[in-house]
This record gives sequence, C-alpha cells and structure tokens, in this order.
Amino acid sequence: MATTRRDSPLTKQELDAWRGMLHVHRDVVARLDAELEREQGLPLSSYEVLISLADSADGRLRMGELAGALLLSRSGLTRLVDRLERQGMVARERCEDDARGYFAVITDAGREKLESARPAHWAGIREHFLGRLTPDDLDALAHAWTRVRTGSNSA
Amino acid sequence: MATTRRDSPLTKQELDAWRGMLHVHRDVVARLDAELEREQGLPLSSYEVLISLADSADGRLRMGELAGALLLSRSGLTRLVDRLERQGMVARERCEDDARGYFAVITDAGREKLESARPAHWAGIREHFLGRLTPDDLDALAHAWTRVRTGSNSA
Repeated sequence: MATTRRDSPLTKQELDAWRGMLHVHRDVVARLDAELEREQGLPLSSYEVLISLADSADGRLRMGELAGALLLSRSGLTRLVDRLERQGMVARERCEDDARGYFAVITDAGREKLESARPAHWAGIREHFLGRLTPDDLDALAHAWTRVRTGSNSA
Repeated sequence: MATTRRDSPLTKQELDAWRGMLHVHRDVVARLDAELEREQGLPLSSYEVLISLADSADGRLRMGELAGALLLSRSGLTRLVDRLERQGMVARERCEDDARGYFAVITDAGREKLESARPAHWAGIREHFLGRLTPDDLDALAHAWTRVRTGSNSA
C-alpha cells in the first residue's frame, strides 16, 4: 500500500470513516433532539444537563464541571440552566467557598421529568442508531472508540 | 442472548458503541477546532462554511442550502457568514428570483485561505482520529455508517 503523507488529501477510505461519522452524528442527534422536544417537550440539550446532574454525587455540579460533562452542545449553557430553573427542574445554589460560583442542582421535578423521558430516548437511540447495527458492528465501534481515546496507534 | 426491550436501559455493549461515538466526536472536533483557530486563525465552523461553498457549483449556496450542507454547527450561521464577509472570504449576492433571499459566495481570498488551511487540517484529522485506527477499523466504521444511514436493519 502506498504511503500517504500526513498532510495529503484524505483517501476515500479515510473520508468514508471520518465524514461518515460526522454525517451520522449530525443526523442521529438531530432526530433524537426533534423527538425529545416533540414527545417530552424537552430538547436534547436540556435532557443532557439533567442526565449529567442526576449521575453526579448529590445531583449537583459546578457550572464549569457541568460544561465539561456535556457530550453535546456547551454553547448557551447559562441560558439553558436559566430556562431549566424557570421550569423548576434545576435549582442554583451558591458555592460556600467561592462567592462568585454556584452549583446547578437537579430538583425532584427534574428527576421525575428525566425518568419519564428516558425510555423514549433509549428507544430512539435504538431506532436511529443501535438497532441498525449488528452485535459485531457494536463491538467494532467500541474497539475503535477505545483506540481513538487511548491513542494506541496502529500504523 | 436475552431479548432487550426497545425502551429498556442501554446495555454496556450499546453504551460503549453509542456514548463512545459522542465522546470521540466531541473531543476530536474540539481539538481540530482549537488547532485550526491557533494555526490558521480560522475556527472549524468558518472552515466548514468555506469547504461547503468551495465544493458547490460556482462556489455559491443559498443560506438555507448552506445550513443543510454543514456537518457541524449550524447555529449562528448568519453571524458566521457576516464575519467571513467582513474578512473578505465570503461575499453575499442577492437571489434574482427571491427578493429576500441571498447567496453566500466564496471569494478568491476565501479559496486561498482554504487551500492554505487544508493540509494542516488533514494532518490533524489523521493525528487525532484516523491514524489511531487500523485499516480494518476504518472499513468497519465505513460499513457501520452505511448501515446506519441506509437503515438496513440487523436484528
């Protein structure tokens, strides 16, 4: 196989692997967002904030930790938390050791909303992504993600 | 293998495949964005607009077409095009058949900027993503993306 210069145009094989991920990510996330919004009145960005808080100790995170925990959009996080606070799903608490900082805390109403939304979201992830793949595909993806994240190199 | 209800919690295998993609996408995109910004003064969102225009007929797209072509962020597209216009890399042209609509058109300066930025970006995609995977991994990913996008179901 010919050696490819690292700054040469991507080959077809490389494009298929890389741009394929960008396409799939964009399309699946857009569908899940539209479904959550339509069926639960909860955009995916809000769902993600609630999940991150629910999975953390005491259901609370500093705003900076919350931004780091999110897998999707971090843009407009302050506005997003403002809206969840108005909806009664998140509360703000002052950090005792940092006068300017505060925690976002999931409320009981937020946990209830999350629990009612999760099954439909899991079904959506299966419908649009997981259910279209074989168990071997799932294992191949998981292996690839581990390689990318640990930087264990091949070539 | 036990049958999984479609709205039951994701299994470990499912989580590894799904959340792994979200993690990798977020982290690789964030790195590529930071590198492009630092080395070329061009955030990834601007780069993507220039690529989409350069790849289109006559280097021009209606704003709605441009939004549809983008694989990453579509948010703030008007502001983004405003900025590229101020930087001389994109021009706006009125649509003749739609008084309120306009095209975004890549300029010669935009094409030059893009050509100078591409090799470093290709190298970055290889450093942070492609180069960490084997050729078999790349093929497995491409196959998985095709299955997801065509909806050819397995189970």
